[in-house]
Amino acid sequence: MSLIEALNWRYATKKMNGTAVSSEKVDQIVKAAHLAPTSSGLQPFKVLVITNRELKEKISAIAFGQQQVIDCSHLLVFAAWKDYTEENIRAVFAHANAERNLPASATADYENNLINSYTSRSPEENFTHAAKQAYIGFGMAIAEAALLKVDATPMEGFDAAKLDELLGLEALHLGATTILPLGYREESGDWLVNLKKVRSPFADFMIQMN
Amino acid sequence: MSLIEALNWRYATKKMNGTAVSSEKVDQIVKAAHLAPTSSGLQPFKVLVITNRELKEKISAIAFGQQQVIDCSHLLVFAAWKDYTEENIRAVFAHANAERNLPASATADYENNLINSYTSRSPEENFTHAAKQAYIGFGMAIAEAALLKVDATPMEGFDAAKLDELLGLEALHLGATTILPLGYREESGDWLVNLKKVRSPFADFMIQMN
Repeated sequence: MSLIEALNWRYATKKMNGTAVSSEKVDQIVKAAHLAPTSSGLQPFKVLVITNRELKEKISAIAFGQQQVIDCSHLLVFAAWKDYTEENIRAVFAHANAERNLPASATADYENNLINSYTSRSPEENFTHAAKQAYIGFGMAIAEAALLKVDATPMEGFDAAKLDELLGLEALHLGATTILPLGYREESGDWLVNLKKVRSPFADFMIQMN
Repeated sequence: MSLIEALNWRYATKKMNGTAVSSEKVDQIVKAAHLAPTSSGLQPFKVLVITNRELKEKISAIAFGQQQVIDCSHLLVFAAWKDYTEENIRAVFAHANAERNLPASATADYENNLINSYTSRSPEENFTHAAKQAYIGFGMAIAEAALLKVDATPMEGFDAAKLDELLGLEALHLGATTILPLGYREESGDWLVNLKKVRSPFADFMIQMN
């Protein structure tokens, strides 16, 4: 199945049937997010994986009671760096240089420039920038889920401050940006499954500028 | 090729050889972005496609002189709504209801709630939100390019205000968020092509939370 076919097959599943997604498939979905490109390769986000029913119920309660958060097999939480710091930028390049058998000097100037520019911005601005990178990974995870015929429901509708508190994300210097319940559709009782997929006219979306 | 294989194959191409990408492939890449899920299905972004060399040269000049912007076959510009307005939200639902043979009343309450919540936020907050949706589509386009073995260089490094002015985006109520040169790699002279692809340790990236 091509990606275009997969994206036409997927939809924001409104009801899930409780069937478990294999851990191999969950790994593949998270690996797609892990391979997503990010600004300067900093990968300023992580993916949390939740299967505990009690925890999912608590999250549903701060996500407008959305039932897929409970009925899903695995709930992915995309959480971005609260800020870019010298420490986390240096750690990325130390790891990359070690993997590439390069000396620290190979990236020293580039690192210093990045550190200067990020640390001169506010944490709020940096968090927004990190969150945008997380959205690229979010897109990759949604794509991979669809290719594996795993249903998913991309969600922004939750109380981020409460979710951060519930999951102890502040201590990890992370903030939740989006969540992605994974599972399998329950067609009866899903009001969206049989509605035609609609996108804006393609001719309005792609604009030739020459 | 699986998506995971494609994402391992791709890299932020530093030098392109000028070979043209077929318009069929460019369409497929933009279609993947067009099929990306977005908040409430509003699709608050568009993709501009530029091939004119003179225009690419002007854009390179406001993008740190990056040569791929000139040497690419097609330059995609992802541009998000500058704001969510009653008019653009109503237009999305009018189109969707027409496509689904539903009366306007089917979505009236939902539309009104969305309009109330978006129009109570600042244009800056709304533009940031729209830009995040564009990043999901950006991820889908990067994924599709890799699956088609088309090289691409995801870029945020440009002067967005100058690019908006150059392309007349203000009149379209759009703001540039990211750009994506598409083309084919020129291995000689590309310092990155032979460096090992590095990501953070997967065990640090995916966090089980039960």
